[in-house]
Amino acid sequence: MSQAVESPDKLQKVVSLCKRRGFVFQSSEIYGGLRSAYDYGPMGVELKRNLMAEWWRTMVQSREDIVGIDASIIMHPRVWQASGHLANFSDPLVDCKLCGERFRADKAPRSEPGSAVLITLADKERAKAALDRSATFSATELSGAVLRRDGKTLVGATVGARGYACPNCGSPYLSEERQFNLMFRTNLGPVDPVGDVVDVVRKALAEGLDDAAIRSRVDASIGESAVYLRPETAQAMFVNFLNVQQSMGLKLPFGIAQMGKSFRNEVKVEKFIFRSCEFEQMEMEFFVMPGEGPKWLEYWKNERMRWWASLGIRPENLRLRPHAADELAHYSDGCYDVEYMFPWGWDELEGVASRTDYDLTAHSRESGKKLTYFDQEAVDPATGKSGWHIMPHVIEPAAGATRGLLAVLCDAYDEEPGDAEGKGARTVLRLHPRLAPIKAAILPLVKKDGMPEVAREIVSAFLAAGITAKYDEQHAIGRRYARHDEIGTPYAITVDTQTLEDRTVTLRNRDDRSQVRIPISAALEVVSRALAEA
Amino acid sequence: MSQAVESPDKLQKVVSLCKRRGFVFQSSEIYGGLRSAYDYGPMGVELKRNLMAEWWRTMVQSREDIVGIDASIIMHPRVWQASGHLANFSDPLVDCKLCGERFRADKAPRSEPGSAVLITLADKERAKAALDRSATFSATELSGAVLRRDGKTLVGATVGARGYACPNCGSPYLSEERQFNLMFRTNLGPVDPVGDVVDVVRKALAEGLDDAAIRSRVDASIGESAVYLRPETAQAMFVNFLNVQQSMGLKLPFGIAQMGKSFRNEVKVEKFIFRSCEFEQMEMEFFVMPGEGPKWLEYWKNERMRWWASLGIRPENLRLRPHAADELAHYSDGCYDVEYMFPWGWDELEGVASRTDYDLTAHSRESGKKLTYFDQEAVDPATGKSGWHIMPHVIEPAAGATRGLLAVLCDAYDEEPGDAEGKGARTVLRLHPRLAPIKAAILPLVKKDGMPEVAREIVSAFLAAGITAKYDEQHAIGRRYARHDEIGTPYAITVDTQTLEDRTVTLRNRDDRSQVRIPISAALEVVSRALAEA
Repeated sequence: MSQAVESPDKLQKVVSLCKRRGFVFQSSEIYGGLRSAYDYGPMGVELKRNLMAEWWRTMVQSREDIVGIDASIIMHPRVWQASGHLANFSDPLVDCKLCGERFRADKAPRSEPGSAVLITLADKERAKAALDRSATFSATELSGAVLRRDGKTLVGATVGARGYACPNCGSPYLSEERQFNLMFRTNLGPVDPVGDVVDVVRKALAEGLDDAAIRSRVDASIGESAVYLRPETAQAMFVNFLNVQQSMGLKLPFGIAQMGKSFRNEVKVEKFIFRSCEFEQMEMEFFVMPGEGPKWLEYWKNERMRWWASLGIRPENLRLRPHAADELAHYSDGCYDVEYMFPWGWDELEGVASRTDYDLTAHSRESGKKLTYFDQEAVDPATGKSGWHIMPHVIEPAAGATRGLLAVLCDAYDEEPGDAEGKGARTVLRLHPRLAPIKAAILPLVKKDGMPEVAREIVSAFLAAGITAKYDEQHAIGRRYARHDEIGTPYAITVDTQTLEDRTVTLRNRDDRSQVRIPISAALEVVSRALAEA
Repeated sequence: MSQAVESPDKLQKVVSLCKRRGFVFQSSEIYGGLRSAYDYGPMGVELKRNLMAEWWRTMVQSREDIVGIDASIIMHPRVWQASGHLANFSDPLVDCKLCGERFRADKAPRSEPGSAVLITLADKERAKAALDRSATFSATELSGAVLRRDGKTLVGATVGARGYACPNCGSPYLSEERQFNLMFRTNLGPVDPVGDVVDVVRKALAEGLDDAAIRSRVDASIGESAVYLRPETAQAMFVNFLNVQQSMGLKLPFGIAQMGKSFRNEVKVEKFIFRSCEFEQMEMEFFVMPGEGPKWLEYWKNERMRWWASLGIRPENLRLRPHAADELAHYSDGCYDVEYMFPWGWDELEGVASRTDYDLTAHSRESGKKLTYFDQEAVDPATGKSGWHIMPHVIEPAAGATRGLLAVLCDAYDEEPGDAEGKGARTVLRLHPRLAPIKAAILPLVKKDGMPEVAREIVSAFLAAGITAKYDEQHAIGRRYARHDEIGTPYAITVDTQTLEDRTVTLRNRDDRSQVRIPISAALEVVSRALAEA
């Protein structure tokens, strides 16, 4: 009776359900929205909480060897100096001189240098303007090309030595590539960096400095109070390594885990909540003895796959992809991506990487603090004596909570066509009961005759057992079932006339719409059992 | 046997425990720390999660009339235009011309204009330098004073017309007051605001513009991509009012709740985690019929007091303080603060404010969207006809999660002196079991003879029941009890030789150190019962 929705517009259907049923709204929608920012509505916030609580339970609370932390989003800027983010966490940006598009050079489609390319603008007027603009280019810039216009297209251009053209209009007339750092910068403390910049520029101009020198003075001036929104949660685990290890008396191997927001000023945002500037991560750094990295990488890649599968995601939509050697960071000796088959194809949910001792070594160097683990009994291989200050190696399973949420939604989304006339057609979200925002809808058949009172009694019993149940009396029972199917409520418990006589209710199962009559007292047990199931 | 710790150094003791036992660390400590930023360690993150989960359970999950959301931290800048934060969320800043101190004019101690004031520097050298600097001041600036030095003090100054002097050195020689907006600003999108500013300044100088004109051009240039970290979570509830109300089919009165991080670039940070630049809030906007504000303000102030008390905070350390008329915002017709007796005195935990229809009206005006609630059956008082677009009034209970955590820690902190020789002295954190990071410590008396296996079985049974239990085998049993007293674990369950014979364990109560021998099977029930208790 169920069918996988594989149509190309599946993502659009999920987006639409998300808005209609209070999962995800465009942020600041009444102001026209903000670039790829999203707000989680009443159902979305519960689903996200449940997903992240599952991770926390599995990774932290149920393990002896992992503890959690929750660090500041704004950390000391030297953290990003040491991690390399200040120098290297950037994309190469290019502007098209004809249409003004700003794009990532490394993501532009490649073409053979020297091959002919058509430049296509939105309309004739724009093509005319572009042709005029090209007339102002130098001969070198044009590299001998003679452009002519054909409707909204300019003919005669060739791809330059860089081997790519503007992904919007096709123009090979581009600005220099420049590095754009993806970290959001702000200023901490009662300072006026803008006022300072004005002063610095004025003074530098008076001294007759050139552009580069002015820019470097301005950057230095801003740098004094500049801080950054973290682009990942992971660095906090390295920076807090000693405090955590010592306050908790942890012994190798052990892990430090964190969930929370990270921020990246992405050049290209796309695919609903999949890639946005503000998102949530679930990351864990697992510290092991040198030499034990490969063993633990194997362990964690399997554990993490198992976890994603435990959320009820169909196994055929999950895979582990080992990184090729040329994909690995220079310090890494192995990495796997957990990927999900999104409506647009396989894409990353989580990376499980062996990071060797790169991070602790970098922060030790930058901070001057020895971020090592002291094992009194181990023999230091360097000295041959007891007592070894070990620089642990690290395995990092780094999952995206926001994209995990999208994967869960896409995987759970289903449509049933109903009978030949379409009767009984419905949309249903087949969420794992542990993830469902509401575990049980408690529905009085009508708003009178004492049914609301009994229904509320049942709600109280569920809440007392720590299970989210919602009383719902609005609209006809069929509409209520349909609503709860769309938000993924696994069970609906209906209080009717017979309930008042014999204290039984009907229990409706979301997935197959089957209904059974059971005593009130049994309902809680059925739902509890479903929640406990793997 | 217990005694309240009322010594002035109680805060310091709490800070020290927080670091020692993994509750709160200074953020980026290995880099010298960052201005009032804190990281939550393994125990702190659990305590914070528990506190916020209690709020969420009480305010959202267990109520029919309130739903939750989780909005972006970076919202559309017009949100802050409409809310008034861009124009008014600022402190008046002043710089001392002698010692360089930057301070809030409105928080500086007041003195009678014209009264004599001593200027006291840190040492003689600095006093000399300050005297030299004062010699460069104009006659107006000095207002006729003749300064002379006496050791590290300058004598002869008088307080100016503004009625305050530098809180650091006492100098009345101060810069103009200027408004400093407390919102953190950053830039969204692949833009280079700094490069743009350099260009703008260069061009403006070439045009011969004056300072004010240059500054206004620079601000306009930055403004194009400027966005802000939210200084409160509340505005998201107003901005999402329609989406939430419609997707959930909510009827007045109803509430929208949110928990999460907010950011304020505070001029003065102080008192550990009480006032820091990055903190967490738990806010709810309760929308009611016009005219029903006072009734619901009364309701919510009582509900919120009850909630804080339900966390186990001593009643004598909590109070409700009504705002005086001159403390109220211009649109508010009533406000109460829930205050806690911190080690430094009464201070705010939560504000419960009647905000009338100020916020929805402001966002309706700014966005051009009608943020009203349509009641088909109600009679519109303006037209006398059925069908009323109501602009709801709002009651806002806005609590600080971060300072709530500090209140809980201060309230739970206790020291017991032990006997005359100090034997049996201990520090204990009397946390409510629901807040405690670990509900039960499961301790094998020794690491052998099968005790670890039984202990781990017990842990598994607790985890299966959703109760956080931790296996702990390190150090002697006394040291383990002491550690768990300090992190507030309400129960310790010890597995010993007798356990292996008759499946009984000792259950130790944190608060009175009493121990009873009970069957393993009863242990879970005792702890569950304690968690269910109010």
